[in-house]
Amino acid sequence: MTQLKTNVVVQEVGLRDGLQSVSQVMPTEAKKAWISAAHQAGVRHMELASFVPPKLLPQMADATEVVAHALTLPSLVVTALVPNLRGAENALKAGVHRIVAPISVSEKHSLANVRKTPDAMIEEFARIRQLRDSEPAWSSVTLVGGLSTVFGCTFQGYVPETDVLRVVLATIEAGADVVALGDTTGHATPSHVGRLLDRLLPLAQGKVNSLHFHDTRGMALANTVVALDHGIREFDASLAGIGGCPNAPGATGNVATEDLVYMLQAMGYETGIDLPNLLKIRDTLTDALPEASLYGYIARQGILDGSLPMQLSARGVQ
Amino acid sequence: MTQLKTNVVVQEVGLRDGLQSVSQVMPTEAKKAWISAAHQAGVRHMELASFVPPKLLPQMADATEVVAHALTLPSLVVTALVPNLRGAENALKAGVHRIVAPISVSEKHSLANVRKTPDAMIEEFARIRQLRDSEPAWSSVTLVGGLSTVFGCTFQGYVPETDVLRVVLATIEAGADVVALGDTTGHATPSHVGRLLDRLLPLAQGKVNSLHFHDTRGMALANTVVALDHGIREFDASLAGIGGCPNAPGATGNVATEDLVYMLQAMGYETGIDLPNLLKIRDTLTDALPEASLYGYIARQGILDGSLPMQLSARGVQ
Repeated sequence: MTQLKTNVVVQEVGLRDGLQSVSQVMPTEAKKAWISAAHQAGVRHMELASFVPPKLLPQMADATEVVAHALTLPSLVVTALVPNLRGAENALKAGVHRIVAPISVSEKHSLANVRKTPDAMIEEFARIRQLRDSEPAWSSVTLVGGLSTVFGCTFQGYVPETDVLRVVLATIEAGADVVALGDTTGHATPSHVGRLLDRLLPLAQGKVNSLHFHDTRGMALANTVVALDHGIREFDASLAGIGGCPNAPGATGNVATEDLVYMLQAMGYETGIDLPNLLKIRDTLTDALPEASLYGYIARQGILDGSLPMQLSARGVQ
Repeated sequence: MTQLKTNVVVQEVGLRDGLQSVSQVMPTEAKKAWISAAHQAGVRHMELASFVPPKLLPQMADATEVVAHALTLPSLVVTALVPNLRGAENALKAGVHRIVAPISVSEKHSLANVRKTPDAMIEEFARIRQLRDSEPAWSSVTLVGGLSTVFGCTFQGYVPETDVLRVVLATIEAGADVVALGDTTGHATPSHVGRLLDRLLPLAQGKVNSLHFHDTRGMALANTVVALDHGIREFDASLAGIGGCPNAPGATGNVATEDLVYMLQAMGYETGIDLPNLLKIRDTLTDALPEASLYGYIARQGILDGSLPMQLSARGVQ
C-alpha cells in the first residue's frame, strides 16, 4: 500500500554560492547552526564550502571546520567547490563526499572566475580526477563538473549551445561522474532550457542530472518546470535566495530553497524537506548576516492554510 | 520568407484588478496617460474599469470616462468588469468591446465578492447575455465569464476540480463566448494547472483560452509555461504586479506584465509589446500612486544587454 512518489534532490548551496557573494563573513558557529538546522529540516545534500585560498575569499577560510561539522550529521551528502587541484586535495583530505569544480562555458567568465580558459580548466579537471583515483580511500568521492554560464554570460552575452555541448562532452571525457548545468547569471528562459536539454541529454551518457538556476529575472521556477519535464531530478537552491556570483556583475542569488521546495511538494515530488522547519532557518541568516538581502515568496506569504499543497500533491501522483 | 510566430495576447488588467485593491484613488488623467502609454507600447488588450456603484469602489467611479478615452485608441480591445446586469448595461452603453462578469467557483468568495452564490451569479450571467443579445448594436460585444478562485480560495481552501468543471460548463451554457480561469488568490501550482486543463479543455468547446494568475507565491510564470504547453494563448497581467483582491485576504497582485512579456518574448512568442516602453510606464504609477508597492524582476534587473532574448526567441521558433 505504499504510495510511490518521485524523489527530487534539492541541494542547499547557500553556504557556498550564497555566502561567497556576501561581503560580511558569517561566523563559523552560525554556519554550523545553519547546517544542523537544515539537516534537521530534512535537507540531505549541501554544497557548503569552497576550498580556495582564504586571502581570495575570507568567507570560506573555515572550509575544513565547516566540512568536519557537516560530516557528523547522518546521511548528509557533503559537497565542496574546488577551483583547482590544490583545492581538490584539501577537500578530499577533509573528507567530502562530492567535489565540484567550476567550468565556465564562457571564456571571459572562466578567466574572471578561475583565471583559466575553459579548456585549461578541463585539463585541471582531468588532473583532479587522477588525484581522486590515486587514493583508494577517495574512490567513493563523486566528481562533479559544475558548468557555469551555460545559458548566457554577463560578460560575453549569448553563449552558443554548441559551446555548451562541447564543454559538457569534454568534461565527461575528462572524468566527470556528474555534470551540473549552471545558469550563473540568470539568463535562462524556459524555452532555452528545453531546447538545450533536448539536444544535450541524448549525448550526455546519463551524467547530466543536476541544474542550478539563479532567479535574477524571475525565471527560475518556470525553468525548473521544464527541467522536471525533461527528467532532471536534482536542483540547487539557496536559503532565502541569498547570493549571486562575485564574478558575474548583476547576477542575484539562486532560487530560494523555500520556494523551490514549496513548488516541488505541491507538484507531488518528494524532497524529504519539512518546509516550516526550513523557513525557521531564515532567522539564523538574519541574526548572523543582518545586512544581507533575503528573498522568497513563501516566507512572505506563508504556507497555505492547512495541508492544501499536500492534498494537491497526493492527487497529483495518483 | 515570413517567419511565423505564435501570437500570445497579454491583457493588461492593472487598471481594474490592480487598482481595485489600491486604496489611493488614481486620478482619471493618470489612468488615461497609462492607457495611452500602454497602447503606445503595443498593448492591445486592456481590462480597465469596473462598472460598479461608486460608493462601493470609488477607484472605479470614472469608468465611463476611462472607457471613452480607451475607445479613441486604434485597435485597442477594451474590456470592463461588470458584477451584475446593471453594470453590464452601463458598460454596453459606454461602448466596451468585451464585458467580463466574475463568477467565483468558491461559494464563500462569491458571496463576499458579488453577494451572490455561484449559481445565482450564473443566472445573472444568463440575463447579461440576454441583454447583450437584445440590441443589435451590441451583437459584436464579447461576453467573458471570468471564473475566480479556480485553483483555491483563501476562505474555502481547496476548490474541488469537479466544482470548476461544473461552473465552467454552466457558464458556457449560460451564454459565455469566452471563459477565463482566474487564480484569484495565488493558490495555483504547475501540476494543478496542467491537471485541470487536461480535464477541462476537452469539455470546454474551445471557449477556455484565457488564464489569470496572481503571483502570490511566485508560481505565476511557472504556471504560465504549463498553460502555454496546453495551448492557452491569452494571459492577464498587471503592470508592476500591483493589486490583489479586496475580498481575498493575503492575495497579492497579478503577475507583473513586464516579467510575463519578457518571458513570452524570450520563448519566441509574439506579444506585439515593446518592453522598454512598457517599463517606462512604471513612472506613471509611481507618480500617481506613491504609496503603492511595485513589483517585478525585469524592472529591477533590466533587460538583457543587446538583443539576446530576441535572438533566443528567433532561434526558439525555427
